Amino acid sequence: MKVITKINEMQTYINKMKKRHTIGFVPTMGALHQGHMSLVAAAAGENSRVVVSIFVNPTQFAAGEDLEKYPRPIKKDLKMMKDSKLVACVFKPEAADMYPEGFASYVALENDMPQVLCGVTRPSHFKGVTTVIAKLLNIIKPDRLYLGQKDAQQAFILEKMMKDLNYETVAVICPTVREKDGLAMSSRNSYLTPEQRNTAPVLYTSLQMAESMIELGERNPETVKKEVRRKLKESQAEIDYVEIIEAGTLKRCEKLCGRVLIAAAICIGKTRLIDNIIMDIKD
Amino acid sequence: MKVITKINEMQTYINKMKKRHTIGFVPTMGALHQGHMSLVAAAAGENSRVVVSIFVNPTQFAAGEDLEKYPRPIKKDLKMMKDSKLVACVFKPEAADMYPEGFASYVALENDMPQVLCGVTRPSHFKGVTTVIAKLLNIIKPDRLYLGQKDAQQAFILEKMMKDLNYETVAVICPTVREKDGLAMSSRNSYLTPEQRNTAPVLYTSLQMAESMIELGERNPETVKKEVRRKLKESQAEIDYVEIIEAGTLKRCEKLCGRVLIAAAICIGKTRLIDNIIMDIKD
Repeated sequence: MKVITKINEMQTYINKMKKRHTIGFVPTMGALHQGHMSLVAAAAGENSRVVVSIFVNPTQFAAGEDLEKYPRPIKKDLKMMKDSKLVACVFKPEAADMYPEGFASYVALENDMPQVLCGVTRPSHFKGVTTVIAKLLNIIKPDRLYLGQKDAQQAFILEKMMKDLNYETVAVICPTVREKDGLAMSSRNSYLTPEQRNTAPVLYTSLQMAESMIELGERNPETVKKEVRRKLKESQAEIDYVEIIEAGTLKRCEKLCGRVLIAAAICIGKTRLIDNIIMDIKD
Repeated sequence: MKVITKINEMQTYINKMKKRHTIGFVPTMGALHQGHMSLVAAAAGENSRVVVSIFVNPTQFAAGEDLEKYPRPIKKDLKMMKDSKLVACVFKPEAADMYPEGFASYVALENDMPQVLCGVTRPSHFKGVTTVIAKLLNIIKPDRLYLGQKDAQQAFILEKMMKDLNYETVAVICPTVREKDGLAMSSRNSYLTPEQRNTAPVLYTSLQMAESMIELGERNPETVKKEVRRKLKESQAEIDYVEIIEAGTLKRCEKLCGRVLIAAAICIGKTRLIDNIIMDIKD
């Protein structure tokens, strides 16, 4: 497994690789867990080479967020990648090379997609995400990009950006990987105290309750959201948002039908957790 | 010479071409003249295949600008390209395919570069330019991109965007091609009445005067700009701007040294003309 830190070295390596191989790309911020590994496995299944990036992207963190605190267990990450025997190359650039002094070019969606859900409290977050992914796509030129459904808003925004800007890379959204008690795997789960960790599964169970209500015939999103909020309030968790919107476009839906995203964000102590369920409502 | 209008057809064509050839790309809005042909010739000299795009890009025109009026002599353009025997493919997409309903992703520089010079009166212009070129780079994946120095601000902005976003394409800036009387070739020259056309060369002669003053030792940009303004005011032309700034970065310079851009824009009647000279000041 190759580990490359320099952008131009990566480009040379990729240009050579692309002549013979299809490339599956898994962008990560490191602190890898089984969720990331499922993306790697999916990429390995559909491409002849897998490239993983590890880069804690500063432009997607606002002042006061957890950029400094974000875990960076790089040795463990590299071992996990190597042990998987699925990864051809890890790209681990430096922030000073990705964003040199005077960096000024940003890729952003100017519709509502980056403003809803997590965008309400993190208004500049998705601009950082679309910018860094555009850069990584230009460096790595993958055939397929693997994204986790846990970050559904991010995945749909990237899918839209790639379509709008004519990237040929195909976005593949993979199912959320969960702990035994249902908590979605996340690098930020490590911030939780044992007591908070006990509270955390309420996020997924609340979403599952919403899913059940809809399966049982409820079609008013407000009624479902109210119940989810009620359930979340019974716990220690502080609600950031509970939303039920169109999957893909992230547009509001008055009545539940088609493919919908049931998404919520909560804070437990200082740790912010997000999760979602995507449902196809057939009637 | 192939003429392709569909984006996916273009991508298929390019992916095949890239296996064997280097690609020189000349983006144009059509209404081709010898300036464009000089870019094609430069591209043919340095690459084994030349691709020219003809696309009057709506996102770089503001309301009230000349989007509708902009000349579109497509038959003549295609003949000129074909007769040159230098062009492998013309890409001529439809606006509805480049910007389908719901299009939302933009590429923009967030520094001062798009705000100075032409950006003062055309504040959204360069966002349209960086966005369409990012799209075209993603479709055509050229080795080299050929830009005319006449649109120096555009060229420097695109160079910066491509560097920031890690496009591997090299920007090549080619000298301005001029009519016998010095007027820079431009598709918009066709808007001029014969009388206005007689006035137009004052733009270049004013810039040449600035160049002479600097060659003779003048180092205060304000003194030079004042003289250029004075000379322009003697004509029918209405001054939009006269600026002397750092080439490349478009930053203000207090004292003239290094590589500088002497740029001006004037209106003659309703027609806006721009021109510039780049000088290397050695002392």
